[in-house]
Amino acid sequence: MTTNLENRRVVLAKRPKGVPVADHFAVEEGPVPELQDGQFLVKCEYWSVDPAMRGWVNDVPNYLPPVEIGAVMRSLAVGEVVASRHPEYREGETVSGFFGWQRFAVCDGSEVDRKITDTDLPASLALGVLGLNGVTAYFGLLDCCEPKEDETVVVSTAAGSVGSAVGQIAKIKGCRTVGISGGPEKTALCRDSFGYDAAIDYRNDDVSEAVGRACPDGVDCYFDNTCGPISDAVMTHLALGARITICGTAAITDWDPLPIGPRVHRQLLVARARLQGFLVLDYKNRYPEAIAQLADWVRDGKLAYNEHILDGADAARGAIDMLYRSQNTGKLLVRVD
Amino acid sequence: MTTNLENRRVVLAKRPKGVPVADHFAVEEGPVPELQDGQFLVKCEYWSVDPAMRGWVNDVPNYLPPVEIGAVMRSLAVGEVVASRHPEYREGETVSGFFGWQRFAVCDGSEVDRKITDTDLPASLALGVLGLNGVTAYFGLLDCCEPKEDETVVVSTAAGSVGSAVGQIAKIKGCRTVGISGGPEKTALCRDSFGYDAAIDYRNDDVSEAVGRACPDGVDCYFDNTCGPISDAVMTHLALGARITICGTAAITDWDPLPIGPRVHRQLLVARARLQGFLVLDYKNRYPEAIAQLADWVRDGKLAYNEHILDGADAARGAIDMLYRSQNTGKLLVRVD
Repeated sequence: MTTNLENRRVVLAKRPKGVPVADHFAVEEGPVPELQDGQFLVKCEYWSVDPAMRGWVNDVPNYLPPVEIGAVMRSLAVGEVVASRHPEYREGETVSGFFGWQRFAVCDGSEVDRKITDTDLPASLALGVLGLNGVTAYFGLLDCCEPKEDETVVVSTAAGSVGSAVGQIAKIKGCRTVGISGGPEKTALCRDSFGYDAAIDYRNDDVSEAVGRACPDGVDCYFDNTCGPISDAVMTHLALGARITICGTAAITDWDPLPIGPRVHRQLLVARARLQGFLVLDYKNRYPEAIAQLADWVRDGKLAYNEHILDGADAARGAIDMLYRSQNTGKLLVRVD
Repeated sequence: MTTNLENRRVVLAKRPKGVPVADHFAVEEGPVPELQDGQFLVKCEYWSVDPAMRGWVNDVPNYLPPVEIGAVMRSLAVGEVVASRHPEYREGETVSGFFGWQRFAVCDGSEVDRKITDTDLPASLALGVLGLNGVTAYFGLLDCCEPKEDETVVVSTAAGSVGSAVGQIAKIKGCRTVGISGGPEKTALCRDSFGYDAAIDYRNDDVSEAVGRACPDGVDCYFDNTCGPISDAVMTHLALGARITICGTAAITDWDPLPIGPRVHRQLLVARARLQGFLVLDYKNRYPEAIAQLADWVRDGKLAYNEHILDGADAARGAIDMLYRSQNTGKLLVRVD
C-alpha cells in the first residue's frame, strides 16, 4: 500500500574513495508507503550536510556501517510530523533526527534525535548551533579540552559551524581564543562575528609563525577539525599540559592507506599533553543539558551562527564536496524541495 | 681547599646528535674540594643509565636544559654520605639523587631524590624498581593509562626496567598483559619472569598480526616506550576508549627534524582514544606512596626485576648507546670504581 504522496530521495549511486562528489549520488522519485502501526511520517524541511558524511559513504572502519549503494544518503534532517500511527509522535510536532536525504521519511522513532521545543528559535538551528554542531562544540571543548579561565584556546575551521561555536563558548568561559580559517572573509568573520582575539588565515599566513605570535605562552587547548598541516603547525606550540580534541579530519581526504605526517609523540611527551579523539554520539544522554545552555546563549546574543542554505535535492548531490572545498559560508543545509 | 680524596668523573666531551656514544664522553680525574657549611659528600656506589639521558645531552627543547660541554654527565646515582657539614644529612646514610657520573659528589641537598630507608632491600633497587623506573611504571600505568580489571594492557620494551614493572603492576591489578620485546631471550623473560599472558618478539614476529591475535577485543591500554613502528602496529588495534601513555621514545634516535610516520588522528578518533605524554617528575610529591607500594610488592615476590651491572667509569661512556641498542638484560647500572 502506498500513500498518494510523491517522495524524492538522494541515494548513493556508487562508492567513492575519499570525498564524494555529485556523481556519486542520484535523485530518485517514487511513492511513499502507507504507514503501519507504530510508524509516523516526517516531511523534511532541511537536510544537514556534515563532514562526517564522507566517512559514512567510504567503506573503511568507522563508528557506523557504510551507507549501502542504492540506499538513501544517511543524514540528519529536521521536519514536521505530517501523519502518525505512533503513540509518542503527533501531527504538527517538529523533530530532528537521521531521516536521510529524502522528502518524506517513514519513521518508527529510532531515527529521532529530539523533538524541537524551542519554538521561539528557527527550526533549522536544530541542525546547527542547537544540533550536533553546537553539541559537538559544547562537549568537545568543555569535556574533552577542559579549558580553564585565562587559558589560550586555538580552534581550526574556526569560522565553521562547529568551530565558531567552540570559539564563542571558550570566550564565554573566559579564555583567550585564536581562530584558524581560510581566506580573508573567514578571518574577518572570526574576528567580527565570532569574537576571536586573534584570527589566522592559513591560506596566506605562515601558520606556525602566526600561532607562535598569537600564543606567546603556548597553546593550552586545541580544538581540531583538520588533522593535517594546520595541526602540525599548532603542535609545535603546545603549553605544558595542553589538551587537544580531535573532532574531525577535514584536511585528509583519504585514510586508506594511512597518510604520513610528522610524529607527534615527542611534542606530547615534552608538554605532557594529551591528544584525544572525540565523538559526540558518546554524549547522547547529555544532549538536553547542552542544548538548553546553547539555546540560552543564542537568546542572550552570546552565541552567533551563520547558515548557508542550498535549494533542493540536485544541489545536495555536490554539497559534501562543497563542504570539503570550504565553499560554504556557514552551517551547510539543503532546503528540501 | 681540597680534600685528599681523588675524584673520577665522566664528562660530556662533545655534543651528540641523537644517541651519544663512548666518544662523546671523557673520563677525568681530580681532587675533591673541601666541604663548605651546608654541604655534604656522597660517595657514589652505583650510577644509573636511563633512556632520558639521550635527551639531556642533545641541544633540543626538553624538560631540562642540556648538559653543558665539559660538565659531569647528569645522572641518577645511589651512594653513601661519607662526610657532612649539612644538618639534615649524616655520615652513613644512603641517598639517591642526581649526583651525576662521578665518584664523589659535593651536595647541598637539592640533588637528593630520597634517603633510602628500605635497608632490608639492596641499595641498587633505588635506581630501578624502587627508583624512577618503578615509579614511572606505577604512575605512568595507573594514573595515565588508568587500567581497569580484565582490560588488555600492551607494553612495549616489555622486558626493560620500566616495562617489566608495568606488566607486573597491570597483572596485580587484574589485567591481561601483552609484552612486546626484541628477541627470543627477552620474550622468554616476559613470559617466565614477568608473567605476561602473551609475549611478542618484534624482531621475528609480524607485530600488527601478533597484537591482533593476542588482543582479540582490542588494546585497552598501551604503555609505550618506543614511538616508532611497534607503536604504529599497536595503534591499528585500539579498543573503544583506549588510553595510551607515551613514556619514552626509544625507537626514534633523532627528533630534529621531526621524523614522519603514519598519522594517528583517525585511529584516535574512531576509538575515542587518548594519547598522552607522561613525565614522572610531575609526580615528585607522590613518590613515597609509590615506593612504599612497590617495596611491598618486591618483598611479597609479586614484582620481579633484573639488573645489568657494568663496571667503572670507562664502561659508562658507552652505556647509553648500549641501552639504545637493547644490549642490556635488565636495569642498566654502573658500579662505581
